[in-house]
Amino acid sequence: MTTRPDALGPEQPRVVIVGGGFGGLEAAKALARADAEVVLFDRHNHHLFQPLLYQIATAALSPANIAAPIRKILARQKNCEVIMSEVTDVDLEGRTVTVTDQRYAYDYLVLAAGARTNYFGHDAWSELAPGLKNISEAIDVRSRFLLAFEQAEIETDEEARRAALTFAIVGAGPTGVELAGAMAEISRQTLRADFRHIDTSTVRVILIDALDRVLSTFTPELSDRARRDLEQLGVEVVLSTRVVDVQPGTLIVDTPEGEERIEAANVFWAAGVRGVRLGETLGAELDRSGRVIVADDLTIPGRAEVFVVGDLACRIDPQTEEPVPGVAQGAIQMGRFVGKTIAAEVRALSRGRQAPKRGVFVYRDKGSMATIGRNRAIADIHGLRFGGYFAFLAWAFIHVLFLIGFRRRLMVMLEWMWSYLTFSRGVRLITGEDQVPKPVRPPPDPRLLDRGT
Amino acid sequence: MTTRPDALGPEQPRVVIVGGGFGGLEAAKALARADAEVVLFDRHNHHLFQPLLYQIATAALSPANIAAPIRKILARQKNCEVIMSEVTDVDLEGRTVTVTDQRYAYDYLVLAAGARTNYFGHDAWSELAPGLKNISEAIDVRSRFLLAFEQAEIETDEEARRAALTFAIVGAGPTGVELAGAMAEISRQTLRADFRHIDTSTVRVILIDALDRVLSTFTPELSDRARRDLEQLGVEVVLSTRVVDVQPGTLIVDTPEGEERIEAANVFWAAGVRGVRLGETLGAELDRSGRVIVADDLTIPGRAEVFVVGDLACRIDPQTEEPVPGVAQGAIQMGRFVGKTIAAEVRALSRGRQAPKRGVFVYRDKGSMATIGRNRAIADIHGLRFGGYFAFLAWAFIHVLFLIGFRRRLMVMLEWMWSYLTFSRGVRLITGEDQVPKPVRPPPDPRLLDRGT
Repeated sequence: MTTRPDALGPEQPRVVIVGGGFGGLEAAKALARADAEVVLFDRHNHHLFQPLLYQIATAALSPANIAAPIRKILARQKNCEVIMSEVTDVDLEGRTVTVTDQRYAYDYLVLAAGARTNYFGHDAWSELAPGLKNISEAIDVRSRFLLAFEQAEIETDEEARRAALTFAIVGAGPTGVELAGAMAEISRQTLRADFRHIDTSTVRVILIDALDRVLSTFTPELSDRARRDLEQLGVEVVLSTRVVDVQPGTLIVDTPEGEERIEAANVFWAAGVRGVRLGETLGAELDRSGRVIVADDLTIPGRAEVFVVGDLACRIDPQTEEPVPGVAQGAIQMGRFVGKTIAAEVRALSRGRQAPKRGVFVYRDKGSMATIGRNRAIADIHGLRFGGYFAFLAWAFIHVLFLIGFRRRLMVMLEWMWSYLTFSRGVRLITGEDQVPKPVRPPPDPRLLDRGT
Repeated sequence: MTTRPDALGPEQPRVVIVGGGFGGLEAAKALARADAEVVLFDRHNHHLFQPLLYQIATAALSPANIAAPIRKILARQKNCEVIMSEVTDVDLEGRTVTVTDQRYAYDYLVLAAGARTNYFGHDAWSELAPGLKNISEAIDVRSRFLLAFEQAEIETDEEARRAALTFAIVGAGPTGVELAGAMAEISRQTLRADFRHIDTSTVRVILIDALDRVLSTFTPELSDRARRDLEQLGVEVVLSTRVVDVQPGTLIVDTPEGEERIEAANVFWAAGVRGVRLGETLGAELDRSGRVIVADDLTIPGRAEVFVVGDLACRIDPQTEEPVPGVAQGAIQMGRFVGKTIAAEVRALSRGRQAPKRGVFVYRDKGSMATIGRNRAIADIHGLRFGGYFAFLAWAFIHVLFLIGFRRRLMVMLEWMWSYLTFSRGVRLITGEDQVPKPVRPPPDPRLLDRGT
């Protein structure tokens, strides 16, 4: 800890926070009463409640239901300013970050910039198999999902129509499971009466994972239950299967029985995340997922003033020897820990005292949950494991609770109740320019020719 | 009326409707019980309640609040199918429309494809001065509007900051007036506490019109009242002024005192509409705004089976000698008239009777309204002219009423009540890729340099 600021200059120390997700926001809030200048950078103007992002992708919620302007959240915190800009580089030696080609000095740095979709070295797949990390991507997934039905409705080639109505979701973690469940449900229920030439209940939703069970962070029993729930919804669960290549309209997979082709016009990628590029610029050690390996106090080696929290951090819990999971609770707890650490240090140093000895971050697992369509979920809360309708209600309650602001909680609750009672989806919009379906193969279909000829 | 089908073939007649706005939807619904095959084409999957589009642009509502899937609206109408596709051409002789390079036969054609933004021959301006005709454009306007404040917050050059905080709105019809009022209000109230380096109440909102009053379709008294309301909100109303050129950061205008420059980094275009391109392919006579001139029965000359309704139609009222205004009521009444006309004709012909003589379309003016920020509006209903708070309430009530579906009505009402009570805006999201503000002129600002150097 050689570089820890043992004394601060005459000015207020400046704490630069990169990222306005759960980790960054909590760090900023924990510094609310600190005698420090807090500057939070984010390249988006909004905090996003990522656990519900799949609900934008599946037309259940609008972006505004789960996103809030960062500067509004922090408006009353007078020692904090928010800058919408992208931090592209960190100069550890000079203690500056690079922001739109300029350097910006810090005394403490909190990196909370999160994760991006992991294509495991095949970034070119992102065009054909979009991920789900921000609002734009969620709207893209929604448009592709809804457009597939429009496409199938005018498609006259049976094979092309089948492919248009096949959705492959790669990765059976919470996001993949939630996407698959919702897509199966919408196909079989919501859209059923709205088309004339296709039977939307024949849609294939295929959920693929390289491991031998879904939701592998849960117990095998809960994984089994989730798989059964998914299959009841009509999802085909394909396990122990690795994606080898993504081609237009086709997925090449490696199964225990050998290589196979899946004809699917729509592929969505939920197979994992890795740390954002900024983590690579630190020169610190990264884990296999590109996350920065941090010490007990969540700093990087030799840089006591540089903290990494949330999805960008790889913190190995000293008790379990497992990394802290990349979930909201992990980021919240890390952010709060770092904010408090810095606040205590600034207080001591500003009074001429020695900085207190830093604590050791310990993650408190508050439990985890995943939902599988309406009425079903699984939960594991302090060893209390359950599924079914009660888990679904608990899931909905907790997710509403963690939204920012009463307005969002109320609106999401109303939207959910409405959808639940009517089986409808409130946000069935295809947006973006020139999103018009075209039949893949021009058809010899009487519907599309002059009549009488 | 030489081409009116005096007898139909053995098959059900096919009515092709182009456009799922108010006109197209009403025509389809009026044909619900007709013994005809109704096919509605739209290049979007949703019907859009355009009168509230400016509320998306000003972060008050989400797109889903005012847009509904067309195929869901018509799901129960068994004789109707919806195809999401763009009709690019009409072959009047062959009685077909061209859809994604294929021809599609019709017996009756209803063109309800609407209008686009009118740049009066300067289409290149659209990049710098976006219009407001669909969801994508509204989200673009919203992003530009919100981004301007983010830009100004990090801008260090005073002149550039001033320009970033200047919004010019061209066209003082309802859309321009509503945009200007909302933008002034948001600047002065909603955003006030959220920035550290700018005073958002110093924002300039400039509303420009070539005519000598705002809302020129209302009486001069109501126009005056609206102008005073706007000025009280802080809008600068610049009349008798024509835009000569739109350049990056600058608007060149021709005023009664000569040519002037307005330094505004943000320009929005609400100066008028013209018929969509499809209208030009008919070979029929168009008015100056590119609208198709229609006969008493809303057909084009010599083509009794081709109707044009809504914003694409120029129908001169025989009594007032004025064109039917391009408002929702105009489209609704025209659509319904045409649907009924076709239904009656199909019924008669299918029973071997002669088609009834066609009626004459008469527009019934139900009144018009425009809102100017919170609490203020003007209304002219059957000669009853009023403004102020009561007009505002009437405006809100009627607009909620005309939304499609109880869910949308409820949600919009709640969002409005919330915004009204809290002065907040629920949808302050900047979305789209790489929307990061950059200072125009790299600054000699200590905030952005290393400290101590």
